[in-house]
Amino acid sequence: MAKASICTIGDEILIGQIVDTNSSLLASHLGGLGIIVSSMCSLPDRESDIVSILSRELENNDIVITTGGLGPTKDDITKKSLARLFGASGWRQDAAQLEINRAILHSRGLDLLEENLAQSLVPDCCEVINNEYGTAPILVFHKGNKFLYCLPGVPHEVCNVLAKVMKHIEMHFHCPKTIHRNLMTFGLAESALSKKIEDWETSLPPYIHLAYLPNTLSGVKLRLSLYDATKDGEEELERRYSSLKAILKDEIYAEGESSLQEEIAKLLCGSTETLSAAESCTGGKISELITGIPGVSSFYLGSVTSYAISVKEKVLGVNDATIEKYGVVSEEVAEEMARGVRSLAGSTYSVATTGLAGPGGDGMNPEGTVCIAVDGPLGSRSRRFQYKNDRKRNIERFAAAALDMLRRYIIEARTTPRS
Amino acid sequence: MAKASICTIGDEILIGQIVDTNSSLLASHLGGLGIIVSSMCSLPDRESDIVSILSRELENNDIVITTGGLGPTKDDITKKSLARLFGASGWRQDAAQLEINRAILHSRGLDLLEENLAQSLVPDCCEVINNEYGTAPILVFHKGNKFLYCLPGVPHEVCNVLAKVMKHIEMHFHCPKTIHRNLMTFGLAESALSKKIEDWETSLPPYIHLAYLPNTLSGVKLRLSLYDATKDGEEELERRYSSLKAILKDEIYAEGESSLQEEIAKLLCGSTETLSAAESCTGGKISELITGIPGVSSFYLGSVTSYAISVKEKVLGVNDATIEKYGVVSEEVAEEMARGVRSLAGSTYSVATTGLAGPGGDGMNPEGTVCIAVDGPLGSRSRRFQYKNDRKRNIERFAAAALDMLRRYIIEARTTPRS
Repeated sequence: MAKASICTIGDEILIGQIVDTNSSLLASHLGGLGIIVSSMCSLPDRESDIVSILSRELENNDIVITTGGLGPTKDDITKKSLARLFGASGWRQDAAQLEINRAILHSRGLDLLEENLAQSLVPDCCEVINNEYGTAPILVFHKGNKFLYCLPGVPHEVCNVLAKVMKHIEMHFHCPKTIHRNLMTFGLAESALSKKIEDWETSLPPYIHLAYLPNTLSGVKLRLSLYDATKDGEEELERRYSSLKAILKDEIYAEGESSLQEEIAKLLCGSTETLSAAESCTGGKISELITGIPGVSSFYLGSVTSYAISVKEKVLGVNDATIEKYGVVSEEVAEEMARGVRSLAGSTYSVATTGLAGPGGDGMNPEGTVCIAVDGPLGSRSRRFQYKNDRKRNIERFAAAALDMLRRYIIEARTTPRS
Repeated sequence: MAKASICTIGDEILIGQIVDTNSSLLASHLGGLGIIVSSMCSLPDRESDIVSILSRELENNDIVITTGGLGPTKDDITKKSLARLFGASGWRQDAAQLEINRAILHSRGLDLLEENLAQSLVPDCCEVINNEYGTAPILVFHKGNKFLYCLPGVPHEVCNVLAKVMKHIEMHFHCPKTIHRNLMTFGLAESALSKKIEDWETSLPPYIHLAYLPNTLSGVKLRLSLYDATKDGEEELERRYSSLKAILKDEIYAEGESSLQEEIAKLLCGSTETLSAAESCTGGKISELITGIPGVSSFYLGSVTSYAISVKEKVLGVNDATIEKYGVVSEEVAEEMARGVRSLAGSTYSVATTGLAGPGGDGMNPEGTVCIAVDGPLGSRSRRFQYKNDRKRNIERFAAAALDMLRRYIIEARTTPRS
C-alpha cells in the first residue's frame, strides 16, 4: 500500500493563528483510496526548512501533499523551494491558469496587473492541475515513482480541487478498492453502544474494521471499512452491515452520512406538514441547525426564543400557575411552550426546550438539566434529560436531544392510523 | 530564544477522523512566552515511530510538547515509548493523581478498578503535573537542558492544564518578555483596514509587529506585538497603540479580546434596558450568539424566528401591504419586524434581519442580500448589505453586521440626550 505525508506550509499555523483543517480533509480522502497517511507536519515559510523537510518526507513516503505558502506575497518561497528541490531549469507561464486568473480578477472588478502574472508562473519541471476557485494552480512534481502535490492553503479551494487531485493519485498509484459503510446512531453513548454490539463486534473477521465516531450534535457514527476489497469480502461486509442494523434498529436514524436536522428535513420537505419551535435554554440553536439546511422554508415556519418568563407567558401563552407549581424547568412548562408555539405558528408539529445550560443550577435543578416537549397530531410528549458538560456543549446536547425526539415523533405520527 | 516542537500522537488524527485544535492553542501560548514553535507533527500510535520522531524533535528543539495517545486503551504505548526514550528504570504510582482519579470516577458513580490503576502509573524518571480534569497526569521528562511535556489529547483537558504547563516552562527557560496589544475592529475588510493605516504601519519600528487576524463573526483583530521588551520598547508600543486607536476610532469596538455580542452584553448587563430580536434569514444565529454568553437572561428577553411570511404577519404584525410593495427582503419589512418584536417583547431595543443566505436569489435580490433594522428610543434605523459567500458564511456575516448595528445604536442612544 502507498504511503503519504501531508505537509502544511505557513508561519500562521506555527504561531497558532489558524487551526489547520486541510490535513484532516486530505487524510480522510486518502484513506478512502486505501492510502496510509504516515505523518503530518507543519513547516515555516523558510526555504531551507521547506527543502530539508520535504526531502525527508519524500524519502519516507510515496506521496507528499503540501498545502499553503502560495499566497501572492509568499508565492516565491514555496515555488522557488520546490523548483530547487526538483531541479527545475526555468519557469513558464501556464496559459490556462492565466486565463482563469484574469476571469477571477475581472469578476471582482479588477484588471490583471504585472504582479498577478507571478501566480500563474510555474517551474518548467512540473505538471499543472488548474484551480478554478483561486489564483494559485496545483503543481505536481515527480521524481522516480514519487509524487509531490503542491496545493493552495485556502480551505474552500482545497475542498474544490480535492477530486482532481485524488483522481491524479488514483491514476498513478495502486489504490486497493476500499469500501466504507456508515450508520448514524443517536441516543446511546459510545460505551453503551459498544456493550450492545459486543458479540457482533468480537465476531468480525479481521479484514473488516469498525470505528466509533462520536459527535455532540449528530450522535455516534459507526463506520465499517473493508480495505483491499474482494467480491467475497464485499458480500461479507454487506452481511455484517445488515446484522448490525438488525441489532441497533431503533438507535439508527440514517445510513450513510447525515444529521438529525437533515433527516427531519427529508421527512417534511415535499409534504404538507409544517414545523415550529419554542426555545428557552437552547437560545436559538435548534432553529439555527434547521435553517442551516437550504430549502427548509417549505416546511419550517419559525420559532420563538422565550428567554424571559414574560415572553413564555405573553407570546407562548404559558400559564403562570404552571410555572408557579412545577417551576420553569419542568416537563409541564415545556409542553405548554410546545403547544403555544404550535398554535401561534399554526404548524403540524412543534418542539420546545426549557432548562439550565449552566454555569449554575436554579436550586431545584442542577446545571445540565433540560425538559423537552414535542407536540403534534399525537398530542404532547415530554421528557427530562440530565447532561454534564460546559455551557456550549450542554446547549448542543439539548438541541440534539430535542431534534431526535422530534424525529421519532414525526415517524410515529406518520405510521399511526388517524382515528 | 528557545525553540519548541508540538507533536500530536494518535491514529485518529492521521486518518482524518479528528481536526487537531490543541496544537494551535499550545502554539499561541508558547508564542506569548516568546518561544518559537519550529515545527508541528502528527504521529501514529506506534512505539517505533514515537521513539524515532520524538528523538528527532528533541534533537532540533529545546522543548517538545506531545498531546494525545494516553487514552486508557492506548496508555501503554506512549508512556512505554517515553519510558524507553528517557531510560526509566521502573514505574511508580502517583498518589495524588490516583486520588484525583478516584474522585472523578466516584462523581460518575463508578468505583476505581484494577485497570484504572494504570492511568496514574508513571515512569520513575519523570516529574508529574496533576491533571484535575481527567485521569491522565501530565508527564515532564528532561534530558540535559531539554524538556518533554506529555499531555492528554482531550481539548478541554489541554485547555485546563495549559496554565500549569506554561508556568513550568517559564520556570525552566528564559522567556523574553513579550507584550501583545489587541484591538477588535468591525466594518472594514482586511485590505481596506490596511489601506487606512498604511502610513502608520510603514512607520512602525522593526521590533513592533502587526498582525491582521480576520474572523467572520468578530471582524478583524489587530495585534501589535513586542518581543524581548525593554522599557523604551514598551513605551514606544503604547505610543503606537494610541496613535492606531486615534486613526481607527469608529472601527474599533473593543480593546483586548472580545466579540460583538460580548460588548452588547457588557452594555446591557446591570442596566434596566432590555433586548429582543426578530430573525428571518439568520434563522436563530443572532439569538444563539447572544445566549452563548452566560448571564444574558438579565437583559435578553427573547426572539422570534419568522421564517414564514405568515409568522412575520401574524406574530410580528408586519403589514402585508409593506411586503407587497417593497418585497420581503427590504429595509421597510426589516423595520416593521424590529418594531413588531420590540412591542411584543416589551424591550428597550430590538434588531431584525430579512435576506437571502442562498443558494439562489429571489428574482429581485441576489443571494447574499440582507436588510437589517434596529429599533429603540431613537426610532428605526435600517440598512441593506450585500455579501458574496456560501450559505453558512453569509448567515454568519448577516448576524455579525446586525450585532454591530445594534451595538452602535445602543451607544448612540446612551449618548443622545432624551428630549
